[in-house]
Amino acid sequence: MNMKIFVDTDADVRLARRIRRDTVERGRDVDSVLEQYAKFVKPAFDDFVLPSKKYADVIIPRGGDNHVAIDLIVQHIHTKLGQHDLCKIYPNVYVIQSTFQIRGMHTLIRDRGISKHDFVFYSDRLIRLVVEHGLGHLPFTEKQVVTPTGSMYTGVDFCKKLCGVSIVRSMENALRACCKGIKIGKILIHRDGDNGKQLIYEKLPNDISERHVLLLDPVLATGNSANQAIQLLIEKGVPESHIIFLNLISAPEGIHCVCKRFPSLKIVTSEIDVALNEEFRVIPGLGEFGDRYFGTDD
Amino acid sequence: MNMKIFVDTDADVRLARRIRRDTVERGRDVDSVLEQYAKFVKPAFDDFVLPSKKYADVIIPRGGDNHVAIDLIVQHIHTKLGQHDLCKIYPNVYVIQSTFQIRGMHTLIRDRGISKHDFVFYSDRLIRLVVEHGLGHLPFTEKQVVTPTGSMYTGVDFCKKLCGVSIVRSMENALRACCKGIKIGKILIHRDGDNGKQLIYEKLPNDISERHVLLLDPVLATGNSANQAIQLLIEKGVPESHIIFLNLISAPEGIHCVCKRFPSLKIVTSEIDVALNEEFRVIPGLGEFGDRYFGTDD
Amino acid sequence: MNMKIFVDTDADVRLARRIRRDTVERGRDVDSVLEQYAKFVKPAFDDFVLPSKKYADVIIPRGGDNHVAIDLIVQHIHTKLGQHDLCKIYPNVYVIQSTFQIRGMHTLIRDRGISKHDFVFYSDRLIRLVVEHGLGHLPFTEKQVVTPTGSMYTGVDFCKKLCGVSIVRSMENALRACCKGIKIGKILIHRDGDNGKQLIYEKLPNDISERHVLLLDPVLATGNSANQAIQLLIEKGVPESHIIFLNLISAPEGIHCVCKRFPSLKIVTSEIDVALNEEFRVIPGLGEFGDRYFGTDD
Amino acid sequence: MNMKIFVDTDADVRLARRIRRDTVERGRDVDSVLEQYAKFVKPAFDDFVLPSKKYADVIIPRGGDNHVAIDLIVQHIHTKLGQHDLCKIYPNVYVIQSTFQIRGMHTLIRDRGISKHDFVFYSDRLIRLVVEHGLGHLPFTEKQVVTPTGSMYTGVDFCKKLCGVSIVRSMENALRACCKGIKIGKILIHRDGDNGKQLIYEKLPNDISERHVLLLDPVLATGNSANQAIQLLIEKGVPESHIIFLNLISAPEGIHCVCKRFPSLKIVTSEIDVALNEEFRVIPGLGEFGDRYFGTDD
Repeated sequence: MNMKIFVDTDADVRLARRIRRDTVERGRDVDSVLEQYAKFVKPAFDDFVLPSKKYADVIIPRGGDNHVAIDLIVQHIHTKLGQHDLCKIYPNVYVIQSTFQIRGMHTLIRDRGISKHDFVFYSDRLIRLVVEHGLGHLPFTEKQVVTPTGSMYTGVDFCKKLCGVSIVRSMENALRACCKGIKIGKILIHRDGDNGKQLIYEKLPNDISERHVLLLDPVLATGNSANQAIQLLIEKGVPESHIIFLNLISAPEGIHCVCKRFPSLKIVTSEIDVALNEEFRVIPGLGEFGDRYFGTDD
Repeated sequence: MNMKIFVDTDADVRLARRIRRDTVERGRDVDSVLEQYAKFVKPAFDDFVLPSKKYADVIIPRGGDNHVAIDLIVQHIHTKLGQHDLCKIYPNVYVIQSTFQIRGMHTLIRDRGISKHDFVFYSDRLIRLVVEHGLGHLPFTEKQVVTPTGSMYTGVDFCKKLCGVSIVRSMENALRACCKGIKIGKILIHRDGDNGKQLIYEKLPNDISERHVLLLDPVLATGNSANQAIQLLIEKGVPESHIIFLNLISAPEGIHCVCKRFPSLKIVTSEIDVALNEEFRVIPGLGEFGDRYFGTDD
Repeated sequence: MNMKIFVDTDADVRLARRIRRDTVERGRDVDSVLEQYAKFVKPAFDDFVLPSKKYADVIIPRGGDNHVAIDLIVQHIHTKLGQHDLCKIYPNVYVIQSTFQIRGMHTLIRDRGISKHDFVFYSDRLIRLVVEHGLGHLPFTEKQVVTPTGSMYTGVDFCKKLCGVSIVRSMENALRACCKGIKIGKILIHRDGDNGKQLIYEKLPNDISERHVLLLDPVLATGNSANQAIQLLIEKGVPESHIIFLNLISAPEGIHCVCKRFPSLKIVTSEIDVALNEEFRVIPGLGEFGDRYFGTDD
Repeated sequence: MNMKIFVDTDADVRLARRIRRDTVERGRDVDSVLEQYAKFVKPAFDDFVLPSKKYADVIIPRGGDNHVAIDLIVQHIHTKLGQHDLCKIYPNVYVIQSTFQIRGMHTLIRDRGISKHDFVFYSDRLIRLVVEHGLGHLPFTEKQVVTPTGSMYTGVDFCKKLCGVSIVRSMENALRACCKGIKIGKILIHRDGDNGKQLIYEKLPNDISERHVLLLDPVLATGNSANQAIQLLIEKGVPESHIIFLNLISAPEGIHCVCKRFPSLKIVTSEIDVALNEEFRVIPGLGEFGDRYFGTDD
């Protein structure tokens, strides 16, 4: 967190606390306490503790009784702890706010023993939350409507020039559950054998350059195919800043790879995993998402 | 917010800044600046500004250059501003974090001119987000699973002893979209004519006292029928703290009414409206939810 | 089936077959066969078999070689066998065409050991088929459209002035899966204690008299509450012939009760069960549908 | 229909009818009627009408008064008229029973002016009916269950060794709405430029040879890619008779092409269209299904 906090207390309050503690709790007499204070405690404080005050970022007066300040700090730590380091490095990376339900859904879909039906159910549910977060980044305009009670409600009209683009077909249901009648293109990147040659097959809305694009890939691993897909969208005329890349799980390597090349695109994900292993698979990950979603994995 | 902040700066830094400002920017000579400082500024500071330091909750050293502290304060204000006053009064009232999508959905469902199909689509979508937030308050236990890559994932197992209870039948679809096979009871409170007599019809799972209850009512108005339903649940043996009351829209009057009587129950809502009007309807509101959902309003 | 069929064959063909059979298969000599034929077989045929021909409804010439006629009869028997007797008595009772899938779904939802989630899944699926059949009875007008290939397609425009009315809330999801944005009213008939008094609570679209009504009750038992609901619809101005009553399971007693009183209403069901038991429950039945659907049965 | 029917009437009944008609209705005297009968009518009947009796497939005695036989024939014609000629040629081709709702849905999805959302809604609904019909062809075993009333219900347990295989991804939702957690493979056949070379990409369940396969292609046009996909399934070990090919719309050319090569596979479709045009597109058809379903057509 890198924040230096100095919890300050007036010298007399400090001394009074010490006297009460040492006489009442520890049964010593006042004289010896005062003598020890003058001889050791105060000099040590002045020499070693007080100087650090000048480096503090925030000074909390009145010590442990200052509930207002303590709440402030606790809340701050709470917020920061919930944030992945990568979100601090790349301001366009968003991890949806974790709850124990979300963690519970991850626990289910990552479990290699889950049934097909449950895998689909919980993946869809989790992807819907990623989609909802992603949609929150779209532009909007203010709009007023009249409610059935005859009152005015000042709300917003959100951008409808958007479309989905799938890299792996499996997030469309969740997308459609949130966006009625949304157009959904697809980009298929298929490695043809081991010679490094790739086939890119695409089917996109003709007017995609005028749309905000929700790019859909459940697992971001190395970021290579994501970058190819993004590059293709940019070549079609989609502004980089109009692309929101939605993942269920993202590897740090993939985030670096995509964010370095496309700094103004946004990534929304539900969890950032530990790393890629030597086979370039996300660890702990959830295996091949498409195969598990469609049941072609065993 | 009620937080007193003292932005502190060393006296020499203060003087140096003043000299730079007054000579460079305002063209005055150093002597007159120093004279004015000694005669007016320093005494005024010592008499009027410095004494307030002892009342501060937080002291920010190094003034405007202290980015760490400024970030802390900005973030804190941001969080507090986004919170409805009622959430500060009643710590068990939760408003789901507003995004422009959520506000856009409210704009759609509150509009008296929306089509039936859209009303159902966007209500369901918004209720799902309220349900998801509500589910986040359920207890859980830690659980480890093995992923298809052979890695261990430390997650959670969330509580499955739960059920829904509808006051107005219309939130079940959204609930079921999140909780597979969840039991859903119902409490119907029907005013039988104008004589103040009420019929209460209920149909609840037999083992409801062992379950966490998601109580479902899309609009919380006066809170009278909500309180009757909650009272009935408590009489059936459900601990008050096991009830999570889910609304799309809540009136402040209803929140007061429910939270005063049942302080350990949780309320999760997507927006808190302005007030009730003289006919006890929520303003701006969205009219009779059930009638609009089922098309029996015209 | 009550159809008299005379399978006719020319006399010479009859004789030739007999000769072949008796000489080749049974090793007798031709003379004795011919003698027996003239003395016993032909007179017996003329006296006892031939006279019945005049009472036949259909005469099939050329006997067993006449594949065209045999197919006709087989198909006819097939159709008749698949029809419940009650459908012959009441021409407005329709049982959806049974397949082994439908029977398989009935097997699942009738099983008292099924999980809640499966009960909901298969009930919804089966109700959708009942709804689809019911919708097939709505009026329509011819309509021509131009397809994306520029061709004309002559189709129909089906009646959109319709609504659903639930007696037990649980068939709405299946209805909505077929009819986008359909209005759904409700009639609640609640027996208040044992004194025979009943509460009828209703919430119906205002313009219901102008609509075709799909009345929804998953199980038709005695028909008493169905008749009350139908009576109420008729009082609201809905023509009897505009009511289509949809059931998953119907008891013969209920069908008699409803069809006798309302002969021009249509009933569409997926299976007709054996009978009511002495407690007026449908046998074999599936128990209390609403309780099982919403999980309030145990 | 190719069925020869001889409506027979006894000679005396024939004569009596003629006398009544000619004297009462036409005012002629009996003598002249009898004379004309003996001289012209009877010989003509014996020479020209009676001989045709020996070629009849079915003989209907008692002429127009024979209601039983007339009902039989009417019903038969009704059934046959509802059947496409191709269903008579290829007994494994099934067109789901048309209702005006089904025709109405076709009218909607074939209309080039339909909204995206409606196209998806009505396609999914129609495909579900095709899927339901297709599932009816799966094998099953008898199974008895006990219902909540304690009664025995004799039903069936349907085959669960099945999977879907998409040629065009767009029928999965409807399939999943009927088959919980079904595995869904895919075969992508992509024409790479104009040189006739094709890429076949496939992703199938490993144990597909032990499964019944619902092969999914919304529009059957020439049948070329269907045949490639079927060939691939057979190479994977799927018995031809275990493949059920599901279409929304089939061209006669495609049916000939597939059924000739794979006579023991089943085709289930909701409508058979007129023909292919010179560009091999189905007429009247509905355009490129996948493009319309995913909104990539304009």
